[in-house]
Amino acid sequence: MPDADIHPNATGRALKVVEAHQEPADLMFYAGWFCPFVQRVWIALEEKGIHYQYKEENPYHKDKEFLKVSPKGLVPALVHNDKPIHESLVILEYLEEAFPNTKPLLPQDPYTRSLVRLSIDHTSKSIIPTFFKLLQSQDASSQDSARSSLYEALQKWSDGMLDGGKGPWWAGEEMTLADVVLMPFIGRLYILEENRAFDLSRTNEKFSAWVKHALAHPSMEKTSSERNYYAQIYNRYLKNEAQSEAAKATRSGGVIP
Amino acid sequence: MPDADIHPNATGRALKVVEAHQEPADLMFYAGWFCPFVQRVWIALEEKGIHYQYKEENPYHKDKEFLKVSPKGLVPALVHNDKPIHESLVILEYLEEAFPNTKPLLPQDPYTRSLVRLSIDHTSKSIIPTFFKLLQSQDASSQDSARSSLYEALQKWSDGMLDGGKGPWWAGEEMTLADVVLMPFIGRLYILEENRAFDLSRTNEKFSAWVKHALAHPSMEKTSSERNYYAQIYNRYLKNEAQSEAAKATRSGGVIP
Repeated sequence: MPDADIHPNATGRALKVVEAHQEPADLMFYAGWFCPFVQRVWIALEEKGIHYQYKEENPYHKDKEFLKVSPKGLVPALVHNDKPIHESLVILEYLEEAFPNTKPLLPQDPYTRSLVRLSIDHTSKSIIPTFFKLLQSQDASSQDSARSSLYEALQKWSDGMLDGGKGPWWAGEEMTLADVVLMPFIGRLYILEENRAFDLSRTNEKFSAWVKHALAHPSMEKTSSERNYYAQIYNRYLKNEAQSEAAKATRSGGVIP
Repeated sequence: MPDADIHPNATGRALKVVEAHQEPADLMFYAGWFCPFVQRVWIALEEKGIHYQYKEENPYHKDKEFLKVSPKGLVPALVHNDKPIHESLVILEYLEEAFPNTKPLLPQDPYTRSLVRLSIDHTSKSIIPTFFKLLQSQDASSQDSARSSLYEALQKWSDGMLDGGKGPWWAGEEMTLADVVLMPFIGRLYILEENRAFDLSRTNEKFSAWVKHALAHPSMEKTSSERNYYAQIYNRYLKNEAQSEAAKATRSGGVIP
């Protein structure tokens, strides 16, 4: 399977972070350097200053040991104090609760937390499926339709920004999981700009200001590899040949796991 | 639209609960008596003994006032202390956090909470889409395929049961949100038994014991209407003519909102 031949490890800034996280720790982070769902967790670990060991897994070569940790063989996964956890959103909530003395990525107030979770729900159900649809669509008319849906979903996301959308983050002054779950996809938006006529200037000012801020943020930069290595992977999505679970779900009209 | 002609209010046991919750309260619960996503929140409100006012909304007649509360016009929605919240899973997490002195529906330990959330994720991404697929499939071969997928998804759900699956609940002694999110669909399983050759005895013992326990549980019974009124609604699903968002998403291969 060609997807299994992807570059074996992180590069650039991300490689330095990987190298700095090879010592055994109570928290083992099973990652794939190229995966946006992994990058969510990676950003959170860096933001929260949690001590972790980074382990690269190629999800297309599912080894037995790894399947014990993550039954579907999907990254990201953690083993924390010998207990396995998977699914990026479940992991993000877990990090909030298991490391209460680190930087919070959910607001304190229950109502504001619910608004952040609503934003995450929108990202999961509208933005990400549309992102993959645009990436994988082969003909102009389905690309046009996916592109419009993506503009619309991003508009809605920024309409929901708290604190009047003053930024710099979705909820205002403080970064939250609403930012974390979307940021990795924003780091891959240039692929849609270069290949699918996605035009950031057609979104709104609040959104493009947030994009600029998010892309330059330290935990985002530190967990990003060099662009040419992503290109190798995303070329297969652009041809609709990728075999990731997200790619297959997008092709078959199923739910992205 | 025929869906708009559904019976206007709860019946049977549920009607008594509705009648007992007409007084103004800090928490307004916008509900549809027939909706499984509503019933999740209703069960949680009853379990937690939260004071609420019940308001019936027909989601096929979206009135302006209601659209302010729930922008997609979907039930369930709440207004708590003048603040609107929607999406059943977001509401359930909110009730845990906004009413900390009521019966908890999430375990205290962060790791066990993450397992409950993983179960919820499986219910959302595997069980419910398959449930609707089986309900709406018109030909024998797609029904067979959906039925097999549903058996498999329910098997996986019960394989995940904590405490060795001793029950009576998913996590063991205590009811959690893992139970709450699935129970309303279990209350509608008889529709698949009567119309889609779903056979509970083909699931496993742990699962059928849980079903029996869940169906007889007071908050489940108290929030259930009389079966013949559900039949009127589900007949339209069985013909694949229903116009709910879940029905439309199932038809188009989209994500159930």
